Amino acid sequence: MKHFPAPDPHYADRVRESFSRQLVMEFLGASMTEVSPGRCEIRLPYKPELSQQHGYFHGGVIGTIGDSAGGYAAYTLMSADAGVLTVEYKMNLLAPGDGELLIARGQVLKAGRTLMVSRADVGVVKDGRETLCATLLQTLITMKGKPEVQG
Amino acid sequence: MKHFPAPDPHYADRVRESFSRQLVMEFLGASMTEVSPGRCEIRLPYKPELSQQHGYFHGGVIGTIGDSAGGYAAYTLMSADAGVLTVEYKMNLLAPGDGELLIARGQVLKAGRTLMVSRADVGVVKDGRETLCATLLQTLITMKGKPEVQG
Amino acid sequence: MKHFPAPDPHYADRVRESFSRQLVMEFLGASMTEVSPGRCEIRLPYKPELSQQHGYFHGGVIGTIGDSAGGYAAYTLMSADAGVLTVEYKMNLLAPGDGELLIARGQVLKAGRTLMVSRADVGVVKDGRETLCATLLQTLITMKGKPEVQG
Amino acid sequence: MKHFPAPDPHYADRVRESFSRQLVMEFLGASMTEVSPGRCEIRLPYKPELSQQHGYFHGGVIGTIGDSAGGYAAYTLMSADAGVLTVEYKMNLLAPGDGELLIARGQVLKAGRTLMVSRADVGVVKDGRETLCATLLQTLITMKGKPEVQG
Repeated sequence: MKHFPAPDPHYADRVRESFSRQLVMEFLGASMTEVSPGRCEIRLPYKPELSQQHGYFHGGVIGTIGDSAGGYAAYTLMSADAGVLTVEYKMNLLAPGDGELLIARGQVLKAGRTLMVSRADVGVVKDGRETLCATLLQTLITMKGKPEVQG
Repeated sequence: MKHFPAPDPHYADRVRESFSRQLVMEFLGASMTEVSPGRCEIRLPYKPELSQQHGYFHGGVIGTIGDSAGGYAAYTLMSADAGVLTVEYKMNLLAPGDGELLIARGQVLKAGRTLMVSRADVGVVKDGRETLCATLLQTLITMKGKPEVQG
Repeated sequence: MKHFPAPDPHYADRVRESFSRQLVMEFLGASMTEVSPGRCEIRLPYKPELSQQHGYFHGGVIGTIGDSAGGYAAYTLMSADAGVLTVEYKMNLLAPGDGELLIARGQVLKAGRTLMVSRADVGVVKDGRETLCATLLQTLITMKGKPEVQG
Repeated sequence: MKHFPAPDPHYADRVRESFSRQLVMEFLGASMTEVSPGRCEIRLPYKPELSQQHGYFHGGVIGTIGDSAGGYAAYTLMSADAGVLTVEYKMNLLAPGDGELLIARGQVLKAGRTLMVSRADVGVVKDGRETLCATLLQTLITMKGKPEVQG
């Protein structure tokens, strides 16, 4: 896997601050558990309010944390004065979201000046055993001069 | 737009019953506002808990109701003894989810025996004016002999 | 369907000139049959050299003309000094490419300053009857100051 | 990366035979250079007839061999009496297809009874150095009882 340098030494603080302002993450119950240049991990414990008709994690919820994990992986590589927006993503659901915890791991595949491409794999943990339940392929855009945190 | 016949005369009840068991829909605050053969509409009023870092609807939330609208559009065309699962979807975000209401409209493009393909357009309403904010292209699979409601 | 103004009055010449430099189009046998602001149509007659293992049009060939139709639809809306590149596309194959002619119709869904989003539908004509065989959803980027034709 | 068993011991012959009947591959100049359970590699040397407007490999051509590499990776895992069809794919173009050779490597991510999901990475080799120029995420369907080669 390719390694990327982070141009902003304070990338981790910047990413965690932006994440904390995504109120939907707290509402769902998600937390950012790891962040490094070009990578980001988000975890989400199960609760019945996140379920689809069979009681499993809803695909849209899986997509939501996958989108955020891939987007923040890209955001680690942006400069301090930039914001990040998702352009599009595609997600394949590979197994039912049947378990007590989701782990979404985003990683940057391509870091361009304007566009970045990330992959995010989402695993579901059941009885301590993790199964890959979804994979996302995603395009992000750097919003130059539009920092996400205004002082 | 193509019109499809619904093989199950009770399709609307079946769809609404399945929707009511997607607990995440109630948690988000979404309701199913229309259902007809090959079509489904879902609405979701804004609340801060659904927002990303700029205060708009989070892309993952937009994807969640788009996925459900497209999936239930497909489910209207399935037989009474079948269940529906999302195989994959791709979503392009076309405008910020800035407004007081999301409206997701799913419609079936292709109704095969095993697979269905749906499109879902999601509009955001601000001050009474609707803007297209996302479009999804989605593949669904018919789970034969696995009805979603067990009596 | 939304209508878009073309900022460059000579858009049609510019698009046709760029198309004529895509040597793969001549190699496949494709021709651009219509171009208007935000729209483009490309046709491709069948020949055995374009087939997959069952003798139908290969999915990749369907994707190739769909990609070009959507990309040139976007290019009609760009300024005279810009070039166009495909960022990504997703294609669903809806029916076998079984017939004597493919018709790809691209149209712009969103025309942003940097990014555009197009849809392209590809029909296959057999015995004079057209069937929708694929649909693409595509993201394009405007390359400012990089005109495709240098004088 | 996950390893999958091939249920048909003659999978390699079956895959190569099907590939040889994709006439478009010979027309483009592509050859299948590796095949193992859940994996397939296809190579395509440059010729001007494969180019887009800047003289690079056309994105649709990149997609065509990526689609075939991912599809045949899936086909290695199918039973002897089955055929394979692409349901859909999404491709991100990561770098211009600027070079003398394309190498598409497909691998299966999920092997279900009816559906399979593959990833295909496409590299472009220039002056002996390979750059990742595209990645595909793809859904395939097993056509049971429809073998591709009839004796």
